[in-house]
Amino acid sequence: MKSLTTNALPPVFSGPPRTGLEARLAARPDGLPTADHIQVVTTTVPDPAPGQVLVRNLFMSLDPGMLLLMSGGPRLPMPRYEVGQVLYGDAVGEVVASADPSLAEGDLVVHRLGWREYATAGAEAFRRVDADAHPSPSMHLGFGLVAYVGLVEVARLRPGDTVFVSSAAGATGGLAGQIARLMGAARVIGSAGSPEKVAHLTGTLGFDAAFDYHDGPVLDRLRAAAPDGVDVYFDNVGGEQLRAAIEVMNIHGRIAVCGALNRQRAGRPDEGPGDLLAVAAKRLTLRGFTLFDHLDRAPEFGERFRGWLREGSIVYDETVVEGLASAPQALLDLVGGRYTGKTVVRLTPAPAGTSVA
Amino acid sequence: MKSLTTNALPPVFSGPPRTGLEARLAARPDGLPTADHIQVVTTTVPDPAPGQVLVRNLFMSLDPGMLLLMSGGPRLPMPRYEVGQVLYGDAVGEVVASADPSLAEGDLVVHRLGWREYATAGAEAFRRVDADAHPSPSMHLGFGLVAYVGLVEVARLRPGDTVFVSSAAGATGGLAGQIARLMGAARVIGSAGSPEKVAHLTGTLGFDAAFDYHDGPVLDRLRAAAPDGVDVYFDNVGGEQLRAAIEVMNIHGRIAVCGALNRQRAGRPDEGPGDLLAVAAKRLTLRGFTLFDHLDRAPEFGERFRGWLREGSIVYDETVVEGLASAPQALLDLVGGRYTGKTVVRLTPAPAGTSVA
Repeated sequence: MKSLTTNALPPVFSGPPRTGLEARLAARPDGLPTADHIQVVTTTVPDPAPGQVLVRNLFMSLDPGMLLLMSGGPRLPMPRYEVGQVLYGDAVGEVVASADPSLAEGDLVVHRLGWREYATAGAEAFRRVDADAHPSPSMHLGFGLVAYVGLVEVARLRPGDTVFVSSAAGATGGLAGQIARLMGAARVIGSAGSPEKVAHLTGTLGFDAAFDYHDGPVLDRLRAAAPDGVDVYFDNVGGEQLRAAIEVMNIHGRIAVCGALNRQRAGRPDEGPGDLLAVAAKRLTLRGFTLFDHLDRAPEFGERFRGWLREGSIVYDETVVEGLASAPQALLDLVGGRYTGKTVVRLTPAPAGTSVA
Repeated sequence: MKSLTTNALPPVFSGPPRTGLEARLAARPDGLPTADHIQVVTTTVPDPAPGQVLVRNLFMSLDPGMLLLMSGGPRLPMPRYEVGQVLYGDAVGEVVASADPSLAEGDLVVHRLGWREYATAGAEAFRRVDADAHPSPSMHLGFGLVAYVGLVEVARLRPGDTVFVSSAAGATGGLAGQIARLMGAARVIGSAGSPEKVAHLTGTLGFDAAFDYHDGPVLDRLRAAAPDGVDVYFDNVGGEQLRAAIEVMNIHGRIAVCGALNRQRAGRPDEGPGDLLAVAAKRLTLRGFTLFDHLDRAPEFGERFRGWLREGSIVYDETVVEGLASAPQALLDLVGGRYTGKTVVRLTPAPAGTSVA
C-alpha cells in the first residue's frame, strides 16, 4: 500500500514573505475596455497550506474572450471577472513548493490561475504536464484543440473540402487552416487584417489563398478565392465575413461558429448572417461551440499534434509579450489584430543560459 | 410473364377538344409580386399520347415559396417559374384517361403539375395514392412531412424539450407544434400574426402558450411564454423572431431553419440572427433544410400521421380557396398571413351530393 504520511507535513518555508505581481479588474468597463480597467499590483504570496501548492507561473495565455469577461455581459461561457478581484486565465508554471502529495517541486503544471506571477491553491487546481512534450512550456497553452474539434466534430470536415478560415493569422485560425490541410482539405483560404498577415498566411502557414478583409467587399474577395464555393467555414468573427461565407457556401456547407471578434471589437452584438433563405435552400448548418463540450478529444488531438510538430508539417506561430505589466495593453492589441499566432505573456524571465521560448 | 401489350394501344377519345384553365407567369416581378403577374387563361388539353396520362386536378397546394419562384432569385431550391410558361406546384387529381399500363382511369394521383385544371404528361410524373387513406384528397398535399423531419431529423427533438414555432398558425407551423407535443415536448409555444390566430393556437391546436408577434417586442413575449428557455425553435420566418429565439435558447439549443417568410414579405434578405456570440457560448445549432434531403422518411411519417388522425390526436387545419381564378390573389393573401393551416385551391367542383373537403 502506498503511504501518504511521508508527505503529509507541510514543508517549512523561511526567509522574507514572497511577493509577486497580480492583475485585478479595476472597474467594470461601460462600453469598450481600456488598459486602465486592469490594475497590476504587487501582492504578498501566501505559502501553501496543507493540500495546497505554490506555483511560479512561466507563461499565461491572452485570449480575445477575456475582454468579454471584463465587460461581464449575459450568458458568458465562463464566470465574468469581478471588480477588485484577480483576473484568471490559462497559465503554465512550475511548482516551487508543495504541501500535497500529488505534486512535487519542479513539476510543470497547467491551470487557470493566470494574470499573476505566483499562484497558491489546492493541488486539484493544477494538472501536471510532460515538460518534454514541447520545446517551450508556453506550448501547453491553447495548443489548437479548439481548431481541431471545430473542424472535425463541429464542421465535420471531409477530405476534398474547400475550407475558409477568418481571423486566420490568429492563434486558432492559423492552426485551423493548417490542420484542415493536414486532414485532407483540398483548398484552404484565409482572411486577415493586413497585407503582412496575408503574406504570412500564404508564405509561412501554407494557405492556398488569402485576402485582407479591408480590401474591398469580402464577398468579392471570397468568391475570387473560392471559385468552386466553400464547404466548411471556420468562423472567428461573424459580421460581413459570415454573410459573405453564407453566400458562397456550397449545398450542405457547415459553419463552425467559434467566436465573434467583430462583436468584441465593436462592443455590441453583430447583425449576423444575412440570408436565412440561403441557409434553408442550401441546407447549411451553423453550429456554435466551445471547448468545454469536447475536452474528451484532448488526448487524441495532443498525440496527432505532437506528431505533426515532430515531422515538421505544422508551424506553431507564437507571439511572446514580456511581463505581466505589459499584459493589459497587449490584450487590447491582441483583439485589435496586432499579433499573429498564439499570444502569451512571459511571467518569469528565463534563467540566464536557458531558453524557454 | 406480365404482358404489357394489352394496354399498349392508346384509348380513343371522342367529342370536342377538352379545355381547361391554366395559370402562366405573365411577367417577372421587379420587387414584390402582385396577382397581375399571374395570368389565368383557358387552354386546350392535349389527349394522352402513348405512355402519357390525362389527369383532372381536384386540388392544388399554395405554398409561400411560390412567390420566390416567381421572382426567380439566385439559388432557389427548385427551378424558377418562367415568363409565358405554366406555373407548377403540388396537386392531387384523378386519372381520366390513361395511355400507360401503370395507371388506370379513376386512380387518385399526386404530382407537381398544379396551377392547371387538367394535366397531361408521362405516367412517371404521377404517383398513385390510396384514396381511402384520408377523408379528403386534399390531405395528400403537404401533410406535415416538413414539420416532422424539421423536428426529428434537423432539430433532434427530445422528450421534455420546450419548443417554439413561428408562423404557427400556418400549414407547417400548426403541424410542427402538434407533432412536437405528440412526440414528447414538455411545452409548445407558438407565434402568429393576429389575436384570432393566437386564440386558434391555444384553443384549437393545443399549444401551451401563444403570442401575437405584433404585440410588443418579441423578446419580451417569448421570455414570458418560455420562462425556462427554449430547446428547439422551428423557424419559419427569420428576423426579429429568430433573434429573440437565440436570446432565449437554452444551452445546446437547436434551430431548424425551414423558411424565411420575413424575406418573402419584404422582398429582400433578412438581417438575420443578432448574437453570434450567444450561438457560440450556448453551443446552438442553426440548420437549414428542405424536404428533398429527407423524402425517405415519408412512409414512416405517413404511417404515424394517419394513426394520429385516426385516434383524433391531431387537428388537420385546412383553408380551401375555390377555383384557379382565385389562386393568384390567394397566394398573396397566404404570404400576407390571411389563412390558417394548409391552404389549397379546389380546381374541380365536387359532384352534387359528394363532399371532398
